[in-house]
Amino acid sequence: MTNTRILLARRPVGWVDESCFRIEPCPEPACGPEDVVVEAIWLSLDPYLRGRMNEGPSYAPGFAIGAPIVSRVVGRVRASRNARFAEGEFVWGFLDWALRTVVPRGEGLTRIDPTLGRPSLAISALGMPGLTAWIGAMALGRPRPGDTVYVSSAAGAVGQLAGQFARRAGARVVGSAGGPDKVAFVLERCGFDAAFDYKARDLDEALREHCPRGIDVYFDNVGGATLEAALRHANVGARFPLCGMISAYNATSDPGVKGLQLMVSKRIAMTGFIIYDHVHQLPAYQARVA
Amino acid sequence: MTNTRILLARRPVGWVDESCFRIEPCPEPACGPEDVVVEAIWLSLDPYLRGRMNEGPSYAPGFAIGAPIVSRVVGRVRASRNARFAEGEFVWGFLDWALRTVVPRGEGLTRIDPTLGRPSLAISALGMPGLTAWIGAMALGRPRPGDTVYVSSAAGAVGQLAGQFARRAGARVVGSAGGPDKVAFVLERCGFDAAFDYKARDLDEALREHCPRGIDVYFDNVGGATLEAALRHANVGARFPLCGMISAYNATSDPGVKGLQLMVSKRIAMTGFIIYDHVHQLPAYQARVA
Repeated sequence: MTNTRILLARRPVGWVDESCFRIEPCPEPACGPEDVVVEAIWLSLDPYLRGRMNEGPSYAPGFAIGAPIVSRVVGRVRASRNARFAEGEFVWGFLDWALRTVVPRGEGLTRIDPTLGRPSLAISALGMPGLTAWIGAMALGRPRPGDTVYVSSAAGAVGQLAGQFARRAGARVVGSAGGPDKVAFVLERCGFDAAFDYKARDLDEALREHCPRGIDVYFDNVGGATLEAALRHANVGARFPLCGMISAYNATSDPGVKGLQLMVSKRIAMTGFIIYDHVHQLPAYQARVA
Repeated sequence: MTNTRILLARRPVGWVDESCFRIEPCPEPACGPEDVVVEAIWLSLDPYLRGRMNEGPSYAPGFAIGAPIVSRVVGRVRASRNARFAEGEFVWGFLDWALRTVVPRGEGLTRIDPTLGRPSLAISALGMPGLTAWIGAMALGRPRPGDTVYVSSAAGAVGQLAGQFARRAGARVVGSAGGPDKVAFVLERCGFDAAFDYKARDLDEALREHCPRGIDVYFDNVGGATLEAALRHANVGARFPLCGMISAYNATSDPGVKGLQLMVSKRIAMTGFIIYDHVHQLPAYQARVA
């Protein structure tokens, strides 16, 4: 049995392709005293990783060329010399993209409570994406019954949950996503009130049609032209939680966002947030949502 | 004695010049039952009036071609057939730019309490500009002792007060203004800790020099390149009250604001506000600040 890992081979310029990565065999991890060996089952490929592939600082440190990609991984304990973790248990942590990884002293690993749901939920609805959606949609968006909430990247890990939370708070929820399959997923599986394919529609036309009473909360995942359109269709007093501007991640230049003066005339509040500021709320969130 | 008024002669494109206005004689106002005639003494020329000179909606209705310019005016009651106002009293209201105006039934006029200070303060520090500075700098900016507060348009009616309020709250206050006279005014008369001439300096260089510990509150009066620079120099968790984007008022195109993704990585909150939402707080504000 050989171990395998995925490295950053070169820094992407613009879009990422396979040439940015290298899959290579690597040593089988040795389990020293207090260590834990984890076998990866699910790994999370998140938009913020794009920033970490660049040179220079982002809110998380960058990856080095030739170093493994690290992200949220759910796995199973294969070997443990640590009293806190037993063989066979499900855990999650920020781990290398490798079949098997040694975690020194088990630091940063979290045991997954199997009674809360499927283990993979620890890196989706019951993990960071879920908490991100909750903080953005509920704490910053503050949807009221009857409000219209618009979510971009609505089929994404965060967007699909942001919409569902806002809908349970009594809001009418509209999503945009790229392509008919994602739109169908948002409508049929996530229960949004309306959704449209932003690649196939004029944004203003689609927002006029689906948000006829304007936008009260815009959960922004993409920035750019979508954020500009949301400003144009926003109601007075709208809240815009900014979760991450995917449109900027692969961009090699910044076209800027037009129409910010609408923030004054419409008294709009835009708030950027990062989930690492809110991690302490994760257990309470899991208990509430599970 | 003849009466005179100032009309909008044509809509400005870009910058405003004298050809946009016409000064013409007009009838002496007649004081009907319940009416009040006001003689203007001070009138306020505010940035937001630029928007009202355009076609199309802003947050205040537009001026018609050939109609008088209207703004905040302090004047003296010349004639009154209204029991609420006595001849000789100081009042303020949104009045035509005219030497003398009749105010039907005195509606919209406010008597000025002469014990609070000079009557002209009713349209400056004790009026809307003062309340605007207070709401933006204090309620939205929430400066803490030791914070760095940066105010653009710092010599303006609102900016000069925003800085002084933040300084009394214990913050270090830095202002920018156009030209050495305005910079001297901000430093010597308004007591800012530092100020610079944005026309003579590179913005990044000036902010690096005067805000060495970064910006915690940016009181934005201008938008555009200044807002972009403030984003670059902002600290994590910074608050940006947006008071009005003067740089956009005369612009014939919108270059957009670059770097908004910094709002996410730095968890910045930007909030647009308009003072008309807060007018009910004016008496309490006056009592506090006078």
